[in-house]
Amino acid sequence: MNVDGRPYHSIWVNGDGWSVDIIDQTRLPHEFKITNLQTLQQACSAIADMQVRGAPLIGATAAYGFYLAMRQDPADSGMVYAYQQLIATRPTAVNLRWALQRMQDALLPLPADERLDRAFAEAAQIVALDIDTNYAIGQHGLELIRQIGDSKAPGEPVNILTHCNAGWLATVDWGTATAPMYQAHDAGIAIHVWVDETRPRNQGASLTAWELGHHGIPHSLVVDNVGGHLMQHGLVDLCLVGSDRTTRCGDVCNKIGTYLKALAAHDNGVPFYVCLPGSTIDWDICDGVRDIPIERRDGAEVSGVIGQLGDGSIATVQITPAGTEVANYAFDVTPACLVSGLITERGIVDADSASLAAAFADVERGSSG
Amino acid sequence: MNVDGRPYHSIWVNGDGWSVDIIDQTRLPHEFKITNLQTLQQACSAIADMQVRGAPLIGATAAYGFYLAMRQDPADSGMVYAYQQLIATRPTAVNLRWALQRMQDALLPLPADERLDRAFAEAAQIVALDIDTNYAIGQHGLELIRQIGDSKAPGEPVNILTHCNAGWLATVDWGTATAPMYQAHDAGIAIHVWVDETRPRNQGASLTAWELGHHGIPHSLVVDNVGGHLMQHGLVDLCLVGSDRTTRCGDVCNKIGTYLKALAAHDNGVPFYVCLPGSTIDWDICDGVRDIPIERRDGAEVSGVIGQLGDGSIATVQITPAGTEVANYAFDVTPACLVSGLITERGIVDADSASLAAAFADVERGSSG
Repeated sequence: MNVDGRPYHSIWVNGDGWSVDIIDQTRLPHEFKITNLQTLQQACSAIADMQVRGAPLIGATAAYGFYLAMRQDPADSGMVYAYQQLIATRPTAVNLRWALQRMQDALLPLPADERLDRAFAEAAQIVALDIDTNYAIGQHGLELIRQIGDSKAPGEPVNILTHCNAGWLATVDWGTATAPMYQAHDAGIAIHVWVDETRPRNQGASLTAWELGHHGIPHSLVVDNVGGHLMQHGLVDLCLVGSDRTTRCGDVCNKIGTYLKALAAHDNGVPFYVCLPGSTIDWDICDGVRDIPIERRDGAEVSGVIGQLGDGSIATVQITPAGTEVANYAFDVTPACLVSGLITERGIVDADSASLAAAFADVERGSSG
Repeated sequence: MNVDGRPYHSIWVNGDGWSVDIIDQTRLPHEFKITNLQTLQQACSAIADMQVRGAPLIGATAAYGFYLAMRQDPADSGMVYAYQQLIATRPTAVNLRWALQRMQDALLPLPADERLDRAFAEAAQIVALDIDTNYAIGQHGLELIRQIGDSKAPGEPVNILTHCNAGWLATVDWGTATAPMYQAHDAGIAIHVWVDETRPRNQGASLTAWELGHHGIPHSLVVDNVGGHLMQHGLVDLCLVGSDRTTRCGDVCNKIGTYLKALAAHDNGVPFYVCLPGSTIDWDICDGVRDIPIERRDGAEVSGVIGQLGDGSIATVQITPAGTEVANYAFDVTPACLVSGLITERGIVDADSASLAAAFADVERGSSG
């Protein structure tokens, strides 16, 4: 999407034709800095230091990291080394493992001197697949926004609430929850987005607001406490959020706080849709509240807030009394009964096992699938 | 309650017998600083600069400010001047107006040379009334906690979730929502409090966590997004929150985000109680969502976060892209149907008009009361 009026992806091949550029997301929203990756080590650091984040973008960066490794050592030993180095950067990231497995499967059968070209092509395919998937999600979501827009008075924007950053910065382009927003805006439908700040890491305030601002989409930042009040007063027409993991029964595991917004949407008759690629569906699990383990992260993410000081430097301020115990849960689960529908690359699917199974009938399932 | 092992009120008469001490709450949680007030002007500044905050404490400070003014000029003109100066510090604070009116009504009939002593006594009565009211709220809430505790395995704490700071720092002592917690803890009942950080001003992180920590009550800070997840997993036995304004039908206007927690409590069968003095009941209004105007405050409260830097200094960091529009709603309304009960100084009252009217039958009502 656009930055300073120019279209960008979150990762791309540099003009030199071989090295790889990324946006250093640790500098956002205060600085737009492009970092050039030329080595496996640089790709590993970019993932580990969270210069890139978001499952699809981590996968794409890992694929390009594998490709860069093939420039350094395309032998079997070089492949093993690249896999080990990259998988260790974010051990729990499912897309990271998926992308590396795909690269390895594609390259292992080839003689070493053919691996570099194939790695470049394979990484490009992973990127293209992500763009296609998110574009398709956007097309299906766009129709939903169009229908709501048609029911409103002329000139009245469709008010959409989103949580966290399921945006293009988390993918290669479009994002998941933001894809319908960008496509609606580009199609000339008036929209306005309520952006949840999304404590503790403030991805809404720092990334989603930045994305939407650069693409010219009207938006207002709100603290996470505000969504219920907005919905009580008819100020939200539609909720669009992403999903980190979706059970085969339609329960949605997403950034902490998503469940509270789903409750408010349900209480006020506001449609609540979840945008996700089919690849995030976990066919092994039905009851997400019971069976999805929720990551607990370092309390320092809560007690210290990162931002920009008046002199332009980046600093962390402590907001709690010294020594305060913090419980930092990273995700929660929204039960399927609160979900109006799942917007996937294959269309909008009801959040239940029969509908999901029908929509993804040809997809390889896990053990219980 | 206790600070560093010693009991404090939030306002008290200094050991000199005439001047007034307050805790400078703008320094919390990073510094415990006591400020001495000797003049009307100092009292006005303490309120206007939010060294004191919370409706009951503002009222008490205004009363003592009026008393200090009587030291300077007890004539009618001095009274008029004191009233004007004090009322202008926080024009929308209902308790401020109430306390000043009470002081004026008590002093105006007296000759000027009797006003100083009476002002001192009247301010002390306002303070004592607040302490008594909150103590009574605590006693009724304590029984609720005791019942829950009795149903738990021995040694298992009663887990209580609270939002914002309805604590002793907002009153003279005990607080409203915290009064049952302090009394349960002091009675030897094991409790653990989940403290919502309460964006945007972080009163939970900075004040409630500080209060509970100094009184020795086990607690964990969570971001506002977490409560739903906790309740889904049986980690909350009881929600206790305060109220800024309660309608005669039991709708509760409290800090933004309270409604979302009430929804989660309702969805998970967790009792949700609101602690309030009868003085916050607005007998003129029934439908709070429709009829209570919600204050919108400066967006800078959201985009800039105040905290302590590593060198101990206090600073504000910007967390948003420059120029991001912010919508900063300060309160929301929780409909009575989500409220398990109202814990008042007169006992626990059902959140409906008949129960409230019966419990406060002798109280003077507004126009429609």
